[in-house]
Amino acid sequence: MGERFDLYYWPQIQGRGEFPRLVLEAAEADYRDVARLADAEGGGVAAMMRLMEKAERRPFAPPFLIHGNRLVSQAAEISSYCAEELGLAPQDESDRLFARSIALTTADLVAEAHDTHHPIGVGLYYEDQTLEARRRSQEFREERIPKFLGWFESIAAGNPQRSGWLVGERMSHADLGLFQVLEGLRYALPRRMVNIESRYRHIWDIRNRVAQHPPVARYLTSSRRIPFNENGIFRRYPELDAD
Amino acid sequence: MGERFDLYYWPQIQGRGEFPRLVLEAAEADYRDVARLADAEGGGVAAMMRLMEKAERRPFAPPFLIHGNRLVSQAAEISSYCAEELGLAPQDESDRLFARSIALTTADLVAEAHDTHHPIGVGLYYEDQTLEARRRSQEFREERIPKFLGWFESIAAGNPQRSGWLVGERMSHADLGLFQVLEGLRYALPRRMVNIESRYRHIWDIRNRVAQHPPVARYLTSSRRIPFNENGIFRRYPELDAD
Repeated sequence: MGERFDLYYWPQIQGRGEFPRLVLEAAEADYRDVARLADAEGGGVAAMMRLMEKAERRPFAPPFLIHGNRLVSQAAEISSYCAEELGLAPQDESDRLFARSIALTTADLVAEAHDTHHPIGVGLYYEDQTLEARRRSQEFREERIPKFLGWFESIAAGNPQRSGWLVGERMSHADLGLFQVLEGLRYALPRRMVNIESRYRHIWDIRNRVAQHPPVARYLTSSRRIPFNENGIFRRYPELDAD
Repeated sequence: MGERFDLYYWPQIQGRGEFPRLVLEAAEADYRDVARLADAEGGGVAAMMRLMEKAERRPFAPPFLIHGNRLVSQAAEISSYCAEELGLAPQDESDRLFARSIALTTADLVAEAHDTHHPIGVGLYYEDQTLEARRRSQEFREERIPKFLGWFESIAAGNPQRSGWLVGERMSHADLGLFQVLEGLRYALPRRMVNIESRYRHIWDIRNRVAQHPPVARYLTSSRRIPFNENGIFRRYPELDAD
């Protein structure tokens, strides 16, 4: 389909919307980031909320994508869908499916990163769950980060194509998702990450190659890239970090 | 592809493996539940672990599926994949994508149900996080369950096909996933669920129609359906339930 991609996500944070946004940017797609447009252009949060309150075929939460008559929600599904439409997914069917599995595992890591500061509930303030957040963050830093990053490292090292990418011969949405989660972890937990980064040579190489992909490099220095902040998924709360 | 489906999951629990298992059962597919087979048949947990420790293209965690030369992991992706291969996904492309979005939202609800008893970490025993589990369960019961079930109810009620199913004209993997999560919630939180069930007429109707689908009905009364238990995702801990 040749239609424009309309991405909907909260305008003030990278959050989960950043995963499909990176795919659209890396592919130099014709897309709109609708909730960041002015109301007069049909944009804004109000326009997004109207779609979420429709009676039929509505998304549970942002991000969601409208492409022609298609509505796709869930960050990993949107990323995979866009990548497959835009030539950023592997051509080989088994590689394509593996890239999807990687994207969903990345989404699990993102959910766990979120829950480090919201272990009790999204409906409560961070300040009302700081004790639980400290406990969960310790577990995340010490057990979960090494488990996830070790897995990414092993599949990058074991890619039979020896391309240096996670799957297949070329950069895919799986690599873009890995880039984003590494950036987020480095932002949120700088002490922990600097302490363990050297264990994961292959995935830091992927991170650097993604950052140098010309459309991504241009995007990262543009005003379209929202800075990390303490309303997003990855938050820098020093009390949750440690070596 | 005509090859047999090989599903791999922990043999003692329904867990996340139950979502693809229900699709395979509902379609009367030619499949093996490999970790539940005897070692002599090439089964058992050891066979599953060997695949997880391979160097290349390995899954992060069970469940995973091997179908020909394809490896698919992540419960929602496996369910969608099997359903699309086996005629349990909508034919219409926009409906097919919406069914995938629903399946992933169901997976999010499953993850939140899991975290009610493991809010701090999967590496710790429930007994070491019971205080946090009580807080998170209250939030889950009072805020999250109504939000998720209200969403499912609204899309079932708003399905433009007026089929009584979540999407499209026929039962799909989205309905099977909804069935499973409703069964799980009813098992884990009977007091809460009996108190709010009457709000959600459409989705309980889906639950009942899925249970009466002949292959599903046969499966549910077979020994292949593992009973719910306190090692799975949905656990009945009375201290985490309330009206």
